[in-house]
Amino acid sequence: METIGMVGFDADDTLWRSQDYFDAAQEEFERILAAWVDLDSHGARDRLYQVEVGNIGLFGYGAKGMVLSMLEAAIALSDARISAGDLQRILALGKELLTHPVELLPGIADAVEAIASEHPVVLITKGDLFHQEAKVRDCGLADLFGRIEIVSEKDPATYRRLLAEFGLPAERFLMIGNSLRSDVLPVLELGGWGIHIPYHSTWIHERADAVPADAPRFRHVDTAAALPGAVADVAALAARGS
Amino acid sequence: METIGMVGFDADDTLWRSQDYFDAAQEEFERILAAWVDLDSHGARDRLYQVEVGNIGLFGYGAKGMVLSMLEAAIALSDARISAGDLQRILALGKELLTHPVELLPGIADAVEAIASEHPVVLITKGDLFHQEAKVRDCGLADLFGRIEIVSEKDPATYRRLLAEFGLPAERFLMIGNSLRSDVLPVLELGGWGIHIPYHSTWIHERADAVPADAPRFRHVDTAAALPGAVADVAALAARGS
Repeated sequence: METIGMVGFDADDTLWRSQDYFDAAQEEFERILAAWVDLDSHGARDRLYQVEVGNIGLFGYGAKGMVLSMLEAAIALSDARISAGDLQRILALGKELLTHPVELLPGIADAVEAIASEHPVVLITKGDLFHQEAKVRDCGLADLFGRIEIVSEKDPATYRRLLAEFGLPAERFLMIGNSLRSDVLPVLELGGWGIHIPYHSTWIHERADAVPADAPRFRHVDTAAALPGAVADVAALAARGS
Repeated sequence: METIGMVGFDADDTLWRSQDYFDAAQEEFERILAAWVDLDSHGARDRLYQVEVGNIGLFGYGAKGMVLSMLEAAIALSDARISAGDLQRILALGKELLTHPVELLPGIADAVEAIASEHPVVLITKGDLFHQEAKVRDCGLADLFGRIEIVSEKDPATYRRLLAEFGLPAERFLMIGNSLRSDVLPVLELGGWGIHIPYHSTWIHERADAVPADAPRFRHVDTAAALPGAVADVAALAARGS
């Protein structure tokens, strides 16, 4: 019987907390910068976001690119008046981002274990290779995943390449994650299945339009505990469809 | 006949120039820092190297980690006296490292093409995921490589994992690169084959002791033009050995 042949999991804010740490670093960055710049009159938040998104094509995603963008924005917004000491504090924020402990989200360990007992599972995450590998190593779930794929962009082309490496047609692949833009929509576009499990905070860059109303291969769950049931539903539907 | 089943190529300083750009950035960094610090009396070069190697475990390899380490070292060595303007110049060095054009080394395009016509070839490179992908995209040889593997460390464990994914025993794998430490010794250790093609400049961190005298699966070539012949020799030997 042809059914779901592999289940992919996103990592940041699907398996473990991530955006919260970036949000906290951003707040601390703004506190440091506030000594040098009137943040509101300068629209510093917008300008940092612009520097950050403008740098994604050069730096990619992750903490190192974020802190480089913060340093660049701090120097530019302060007209190069900011002290080296405060720039060092910004650098230290980046190091903290890279070393915070990995904190699994509630119920996710049980959910991944239950799903892994029924289907091969893989981890597909975007970001800094070194940092993601460290988090995978520390999270305690690495052994459940048959493969760990760290990619630079989660778009249809990337998923198409991965599915070719897995030797799996899209209609037998299900992806689970907190980002509609990165985890769900590109997989649906290829003809695969997607489950959205939202996180309370989403980076503005990851926000996407809603899923089209006629998306029979899309599911939404609110808690990790609901994931195994949703996967079983998808698997049954996929088996019927083939 | 069982013989070499796959040939791996390193990228930086094997396919294209890389260390030269890092060396130039390092020189420019020292010129900037010299306005603030007596480099010789402070042993700045050693201290930067120490900061850099101390940060590898946190930042990994690559331009972003290097520039973060430079900024950290510049602030520390100048006792936080360095100006934001000069820190911005150091930041700009990092951006230049990430955007320099990809310049293939002499003869390597022909050599890769000749070898790829006889054996499946893969690219195995260490460093920043985003930057390496950009260079692979720009180098003009990407289509010759069946797979492109960007890894965080090139040690025996990494090569073992890759060989498992390729479904290939080590004795049928040949790796070609400029670093004995990263490209040759770990593959020899697993029972595979290695060809060393040295580059004129090697980062101090990549320098390794010589290959053991009794290393029948090791070859050394001085030019890319000699690579296809060396690969053919290895393939013939590997076929005889099996």
